[in-house]
Amino acid sequence: MQRFILTLRCGDRAGIVLAAAQGIVEAEGNIVESDQFSDPPTGLFCMRICFDSPRSLDEVRRFLDSHLAQFTPLISIRLESQRRRALLMVSKIDHCLVDLLYRWNIDELSVEIPLVVSNHVDCAPIVERYDIPFVHLPVTAASKAAAETSLKELVERYRIDFIVLARYMQVLSPAFCEAMPGNIINIHHSFLPGFKGARPYRQAYERGVKVIGATAHYATGDLDEGPIIEQGVIQVTHAQSASDLVAIGRDIERTVLARAVRLQAEDRVVVAGDRTIVFSS
Amino acid sequence: MQRFILTLRCGDRAGIVLAAAQGIVEAEGNIVESDQFSDPPTGLFCMRICFDSPRSLDEVRRFLDSHLAQFTPLISIRLESQRRRALLMVSKIDHCLVDLLYRWNIDELSVEIPLVVSNHVDCAPIVERYDIPFVHLPVTAASKAAAETSLKELVERYRIDFIVLARYMQVLSPAFCEAMPGNIINIHHSFLPGFKGARPYRQAYERGVKVIGATAHYATGDLDEGPIIEQGVIQVTHAQSASDLVAIGRDIERTVLARAVRLQAEDRVVVAGDRTIVFSS
Amino acid sequence: MQRFILTLRCGDRAGIVLAAAQGIVEAEGNIVESDQFSDPPTGLFCMRICFDSPRSLDEVRRFLDSHLAQFTPLISIRLESQRRRALLMVSKIDHCLVDLLYRWNIDELSVEIPLVVSNHVDCAPIVERYDIPFVHLPVTAASKAAAETSLKELVERYRIDFIVLARYMQVLSPAFCEAMPGNIINIHHSFLPGFKGARPYRQAYERGVKVIGATAHYATGDLDEGPIIEQGVIQVTHAQSASDLVAIGRDIERTVLARAVRLQAEDRVVVAGDRTIVFSS
Amino acid sequence: MQRFILTLRCGDRAGIVLAAAQGIVEAEGNIVESDQFSDPPTGLFCMRICFDSPRSLDEVRRFLDSHLAQFTPLISIRLESQRRRALLMVSKIDHCLVDLLYRWNIDELSVEIPLVVSNHVDCAPIVERYDIPFVHLPVTAASKAAAETSLKELVERYRIDFIVLARYMQVLSPAFCEAMPGNIINIHHSFLPGFKGARPYRQAYERGVKVIGATAHYATGDLDEGPIIEQGVIQVTHAQSASDLVAIGRDIERTVLARAVRLQAEDRVVVAGDRTIVFSS
Repeated sequence: MQRFILTLRCGDRAGIVLAAAQGIVEAEGNIVESDQFSDPPTGLFCMRICFDSPRSLDEVRRFLDSHLAQFTPLISIRLESQRRRALLMVSKIDHCLVDLLYRWNIDELSVEIPLVVSNHVDCAPIVERYDIPFVHLPVTAASKAAAETSLKELVERYRIDFIVLARYMQVLSPAFCEAMPGNIINIHHSFLPGFKGARPYRQAYERGVKVIGATAHYATGDLDEGPIIEQGVIQVTHAQSASDLVAIGRDIERTVLARAVRLQAEDRVVVAGDRTIVFSS
Repeated sequence: MQRFILTLRCGDRAGIVLAAAQGIVEAEGNIVESDQFSDPPTGLFCMRICFDSPRSLDEVRRFLDSHLAQFTPLISIRLESQRRRALLMVSKIDHCLVDLLYRWNIDELSVEIPLVVSNHVDCAPIVERYDIPFVHLPVTAASKAAAETSLKELVERYRIDFIVLARYMQVLSPAFCEAMPGNIINIHHSFLPGFKGARPYRQAYERGVKVIGATAHYATGDLDEGPIIEQGVIQVTHAQSASDLVAIGRDIERTVLARAVRLQAEDRVVVAGDRTIVFSS
Repeated sequence: MQRFILTLRCGDRAGIVLAAAQGIVEAEGNIVESDQFSDPPTGLFCMRICFDSPRSLDEVRRFLDSHLAQFTPLISIRLESQRRRALLMVSKIDHCLVDLLYRWNIDELSVEIPLVVSNHVDCAPIVERYDIPFVHLPVTAASKAAAETSLKELVERYRIDFIVLARYMQVLSPAFCEAMPGNIINIHHSFLPGFKGARPYRQAYERGVKVIGATAHYATGDLDEGPIIEQGVIQVTHAQSASDLVAIGRDIERTVLARAVRLQAEDRVVVAGDRTIVFSS
Repeated sequence: MQRFILTLRCGDRAGIVLAAAQGIVEAEGNIVESDQFSDPPTGLFCMRICFDSPRSLDEVRRFLDSHLAQFTPLISIRLESQRRRALLMVSKIDHCLVDLLYRWNIDELSVEIPLVVSNHVDCAPIVERYDIPFVHLPVTAASKAAAETSLKELVERYRIDFIVLARYMQVLSPAFCEAMPGNIINIHHSFLPGFKGARPYRQAYERGVKVIGATAHYATGDLDEGPIIEQGVIQVTHAQSASDLVAIGRDIERTVLARAVRLQAEDRVVVAGDRTIVFSS
C-alpha cells in the first residue's frame, strides 16, 4: 500500500465527489483524509483527497482520469513519498533560513530542499552544514535579467516545484513570478495589507498599533499583493521600540513561513482569484 | 432545493465515501460541504456532509440508507431548516445565558430555544424579555430526584435535542447524563484538566498561572471529565487578583460556550471515546 | 483612607518621580500602583500613580502641586470613587451597546453612564431597561450642525468626561473631535490600518486575509486615523463568508471596545503624538 | 552615563518609592523604567528600577543603601552591561538549545552563556560551533550525586548566575534546587498544572484537549511544581496525533523558554511564595 495525494480544481458541478470516489474504489483505495470547498466568488470547486492504494501511480492516475475527465479539472496525483522540491532564497537576514533548515532536518516539513540561492555569501556556512548546495547569484541593476535567467536554469536543473523567499530582499520580475503562479512563497514582515513596502516595523511603530504580524503570500507581479497563505500576529505595547518590534517579528515570521511551506509541501493550498483556499491538517 | 445535513459514524472501511456520494447523486444532490475523519485510537470513521437536493427528507433518507446500510452506521439526516432544539439551564450567574439569548435573537446560533430552566428565579426577567418560557425547578438534597424527573418530562414535552448548562451550579446525576450522551453541554470555568472542582479561578490565582481558560465539554457521570468540545484561553499576569480572573474569565466562558452550542446545533461534533471530533466551519 | 489616581505628563527630566513621591509622602500616602514611561519620539514623560491617603482631595492636590509645579506638568488628581462619566452613542447595530451596559451593570467598568444618545430610536428599549436616559438625536445633512450643538449641550449638562462611539455610524465633525481630544473613543470594525472606510469585513474577505480584527481608537478630525488604544484579532479561514466575518467580528469589537472603555475610565491611556501609552493593569 | 538595574524586595510600607527616588537623585540618576508591585497574599513589596547615572556602581550602591536600609530590603544593583551568566543544560532533544544559542548569538537575550552541560554528547557539535565550552556530565543512578557535585563546581568556577534546563531530562535533587532558589529555569512541555510527569503530549492527546501549551517555571525540590514564569498556548484539533502535538509543542516550548530566559536575564522576575511577579518590558 502506498499513500497518494490527489488535488483537483474545476468549475463547481454535481457529481465530482462521486466520480473521485469511484476512481479511488476502482484503485482499491481507502480514503484517509478528504477536504473540499466551493468558492462562491469564483465558482471554483476544489478538493484534496489523501488515500492509500496498492496500485501504481500510473494505474491510479488512469482510474481517476477515466471518472473525472468529464469535469475537465486541473488535477494533480502524486505519491506522498515523492516529496515536493523547494528552492530557498535568502539575502543576509538568516532567521527564516535557519528555522526552515532546522525543521527540514528533523523532518517536520515533508519537503526536499535540493538548493539554496542567495545574492550574498553570508549564509553559505549555514547551508553547507546541512550538505545542501549553495549558489551565490549576485544581483545588480545591470545583472538582474541575467541573474533571473540563471535562476530559471537552476529551477529546471534541480526540478524545483516551488521557491521560498526566506527574507530574500530582491524583487523578482513579474514575468518570473507569472511563470510559476502559486509556486513562489514570500514572507512579508508585516500584517498585510497594513504596512506594505519598506521598513514595515518602523511604520507599525509610528502608527502605534497594538498588534503586529507577518504574512506568507504568493509572489505575483504586484509586490506585496499576492494571495495570502498564512498570517500570524502578536500583541505589542507602546514600550516596544521599532527595533524591539523587529526582534518580536522574527518569531512570527519564521513560524508563519514554516507553516506556509508545510502547507505548500503537502498540496494544501489552492489559489482562487486573489484569495487562497487552505486545507489545514 | 433544500439543504440537508448528513452525519454518519461507523467502523472505518473502504467505500463509505463512495456509497454516500452515490446516495446523494441518486437524490440529485449537490455537496456544499464535506468533512470526514478516521480516528486512529477508536477505529471510528465519521463524516458530515451538507448537500442541496430537490427531494423530500424521506426520499433522501431512503437513497442514503440503501447505499450505506452495508456499513451499519449510526446515521442522522435532517433538513438544515429544522433546527436543533436546545434547553438552557442556569442558576444565578447570568453572563452565559444573556450572551446565548442575545446571539440566538440575532440568529447567530442556528438553534431553537424553546425553554429555559433554572433552580433559581433570578434570571426569569431576562428570559421573559425574549418570550421564552422560563421554568423554575428548585433543587434541594431532598427534591433532587424529583427535579430530575420533572426535567426529563420537560425534555420530552418540548422535544429537546440537547441541554446547555449555562453556568448551572447543580450536578446532574450520572443516570441523567448517560441517558443523553453527547447531548448535555457544560461550561467549566477553567482550562481543563487544570483546575477541576470548585472555585477554579481562585485555584488558578494561587498556582500563579499566566494563562487562564474555559472549557465546554459534554457532561457525563464523571464531573468535569467528559469529552472536551472547545477551549479558550487568555494571558493574565501577577497583577490580576482572583476576582479579576473571574471577570476576565466571563469573556472566555461565554465565547467558548457559544461556539460549542453553535457546533452542536450544526451537527459538527462527534464523540469518539473520551475525545471529540469537531468539524469546524 | 481614600484611594487617589494621579496622572501626569511633562517633558522628561530627572527628579519627577522624586517630586511625586515627596508629595505623596507629605500627604501620608501609600503607593499601591505606579507606572511611568518616557516616550522617545516625543520626549514626553508620563506617569500614573494610584495611592491611598487619609487627606482630602484639595490637600492632596496642594501637596503634589507644591512639589511638581517646577516641571509644569499636565496633571490630574482625583478620587478613584469619583468615577469618570461616559456618554455612549449608538446607531442601530447594538452588540457593543448591549455589552457595555451589561458590563457596567455588573460593575466591570468603573464608569458612570449618565446618558445614551442615538440618531435612531431602535436601541431605546435596551437603554431604558437600565433606567438610563436615552436621547434621540436624529442627524441629516441639514441638521448635522444643530445636532452637534445639542450634543455639546448634553455633554455639558451631564458633565460628560468622555464619549464612546459604540457603533455610531455618523461622523463627528473635526471641530467637535478636536474640542475633546483623547476623550472620544471609536470602535472601528477592522484591524487598522488595514481596511479603512466602509464595509471593512467585505474588504477583508475580498483580500483573503487569514486574521481579522477590530480597533478602538480616539476620534480625531481625520476619520479612522486617531491614536490606537487597543486592538484585537482572530484567525479566520477561506470558508468564512463576508457575513460570517461580520458575526465573528462582533465578538472582537465588543471585547476590544470594553477594554478601551475600562482603560479610559481608569485614566490608563495617555496620548503621545499619533500613538498612545497604555498603562495596563 | 551608565545604565543601572535596581531590584528590591521587602515588606510593604509607605515611603519606599521616595527613598529609592532620593537615592537615585543623589546619584544624579535619571529613571528610564520603573515597575513595582505589592503582592496581597504575601505582603511583599517589590520594585525594579532602571536608571542612568554618571556615578560608579559602588557610589550608586552607597547612595541607595543609605536611603533604603531602613526597610531592610533584599536589594540588587548592577550595571546593565554586566550581564547575567547562564549555564544551559540539555539532554538529546535540541530545539530549545538551538533556539537559545541562535537568539544569544544575534544578541536578543542580554545574557552571557559561558558553558553548556549535557548528560549526552549529541549536542556537542551545535555548541562548539559557537565557541562555547561543552561539558559532558553523564548521569547514572550510581553517579548522580557525583555529577551534581561536579555541576556545583562548574557553577562556581564559571560564576553562573542561573541555570536553564533546556529539555534536560534528568531531575536535579531538591538540595541542589534549593541552593539556587529562583535561579533554575525549567521548560515543561505542557500547560501546567494540566499534565505533569512523563509524555505530556500523549496525555493531552488522550484527554482530547483543544489547546496545548508549555510552561517555563523555576525548578524546586518538587518536580513540575515550582513558580510559573511564563506560559504559551496554541489551538489544536482532533486531527493532530500525539506526535503532531510534539512537533507543534516544539514551537511553543522554545518561544516560552526564550522569553523566560530574557526576563530572568533582565532581572524582571520576582518569586513571591508559589507565584512569580513578572515585570514585562
